[in-house]
Amino acid sequence: MNLETFILGTGGMMPLPHRYLTSVLLRREGELFLFDCGEGTQVALRKLNLKWKKITAIFISHTHADHVTGLPGILMLSSQVDREEPLYIYGPPKIREYVESSRKVLDMYINYEIIIREISEDGLVYEGDGFNISSFKLEHSKPCVGYTLTEDKRPGIFFPDKAEELGVPRGPLWSDLQSGKDVSIADGTVVRPSDVMGESRSGRKFSFVTDSLPLDTIPEKISGSDLFICEGMFKHELKEGAAEKKHMTGVQAAELARAAGGVKKMGLIHYSPRYSKSDLKDMVKEAIEVFPETFLTRDGQHIPIENVD
Amino acid sequence: MNLETFILGTGGMMPLPHRYLTSVLLRREGELFLFDCGEGTQVALRKLNLKWKKITAIFISHTHADHVTGLPGILMLSSQVDREEPLYIYGPPKIREYVESSRKVLDMYINYEIIIREISEDGLVYEGDGFNISSFKLEHSKPCVGYTLTEDKRPGIFFPDKAEELGVPRGPLWSDLQSGKDVSIADGTVVRPSDVMGESRSGRKFSFVTDSLPLDTIPEKISGSDLFICEGMFKHELKEGAAEKKHMTGVQAAELARAAGGVKKMGLIHYSPRYSKSDLKDMVKEAIEVFPETFLTRDGQHIPIENVD
Repeated sequence: MNLETFILGTGGMMPLPHRYLTSVLLRREGELFLFDCGEGTQVALRKLNLKWKKITAIFISHTHADHVTGLPGILMLSSQVDREEPLYIYGPPKIREYVESSRKVLDMYINYEIIIREISEDGLVYEGDGFNISSFKLEHSKPCVGYTLTEDKRPGIFFPDKAEELGVPRGPLWSDLQSGKDVSIADGTVVRPSDVMGESRSGRKFSFVTDSLPLDTIPEKISGSDLFICEGMFKHELKEGAAEKKHMTGVQAAELARAAGGVKKMGLIHYSPRYSKSDLKDMVKEAIEVFPETFLTRDGQHIPIENVD
Repeated sequence: MNLETFILGTGGMMPLPHRYLTSVLLRREGELFLFDCGEGTQVALRKLNLKWKKITAIFISHTHADHVTGLPGILMLSSQVDREEPLYIYGPPKIREYVESSRKVLDMYINYEIIIREISEDGLVYEGDGFNISSFKLEHSKPCVGYTLTEDKRPGIFFPDKAEELGVPRGPLWSDLQSGKDVSIADGTVVRPSDVMGESRSGRKFSFVTDSLPLDTIPEKISGSDLFICEGMFKHELKEGAAEKKHMTGVQAAELARAAGGVKKMGLIHYSPRYSKSDLKDMVKEAIEVFPETFLTRDGQHIPIENVD
């Protein structure tokens, strides 16, 4: 079961030594989800050269231009690929107004259904096959939310030795046990999955947080993430300026990851386009001191998320 | 006096073997004007590596997504460069609604004045120093206009021999004559500019037409253009489909250029992103048969417009 993300470079401000990274494409078993949709997302998506059919759902953090102005392009592009299912768009209030006013003013040709769900409180927003996506409140200069994708628990490890010991013959009964069913063997004894398997294992978790103060409510939400994608807008020397603009520094992102517990790695996005390569190196270095598994994402980067046990 | 244009690649639809070209930057003596503003215009502009301070005015053909969704980015970007003057935006009805609803929904930070002028009839829309810009009606699936930029007439050629013959000494009096003033020489004779100069010469002309049926009202408007940038969406074999979508073929663009008279060269933009290189070669070849000075524009192309006499 593949789970992977791609970092999407989008339109940014001048001067711009590197692409501005605000959006993330997540692919799970061929199914696509987009987290934010900055200007030029359709171009960044094309550059990935994926064979793709459709985007299932789009999750928007907030309706500032650099997080949504790629939506009209993506919505029109989605009319050019085969799809019968609706496209879901989630986001804080105003996302409906943005999509609907764009459709109306720009007369966009869209040949499929768009279902917009505005988010007003923390909790489950999307249930997929084997996973779900929840949102939680962030604090920015306008309503903003973060997201987590959590896979269902996986069965525990199967111990063949134990099965043989209990007299379950190798074959279809093993599969039944592994998929959670009790089985009866020749002598009438019932063997249960828990007799031959370890504790159920957690699925993978992906979290996405951008454009927020480093709230102390965040760590609990992102706890145990295999991949945490977080805004690292500024070096820590600018933390007052970051707070004023309701953004966070790379170090503050690292503090969240450390406080959360169980975060496997954290990728910084949304770093200031004004920063030179050497500034960015400094920023990630100071973040690594706080949370060693920090890295700086780059345009088009492919980040697989693996089960570790 | 420099006059030049740059072709801007913008967001396009899939599949996309080449960038989608909908927008043109025009620079005249360092002053910038934008004709249409597709998704990603800010990135395309940055790639040109111009030293720029501000865009004076933006001229929009029509409010379809591929011609305007770069505007929020450009308007925000323009808050990062020094400017005291307002930014003018011209376009057919709905351009105001698009800009104002974007500003409202996206809470865009803009630190200068934006003046929007909706165009309802043909004629002068912008008067610059030494040139003016006019618009004219096109016919597309929504209100659409074309634009021409026409420089003021230049003085005629100065003939030094004639000036010497009439006894005007080389020096300041020559400059006075060249700038249109009568001068008196030592013996009291008055020499007029017309005595020593040829007929006044026309300035340069740039025309921009995209997303339209090939109306027979267009040639008169674009007549005498030094550079005519025109949509060439399809090969001529698709002319029925083009007409249905209220677009034109490369050959129809060439017919307009030929009928206009005095067009020096025509650059095709907005060609279908579905076309392969070889399709595009075919399309420009059949257009060249109609109007030999046709060429296919490319992303980032710099096209100087020179006075020829």
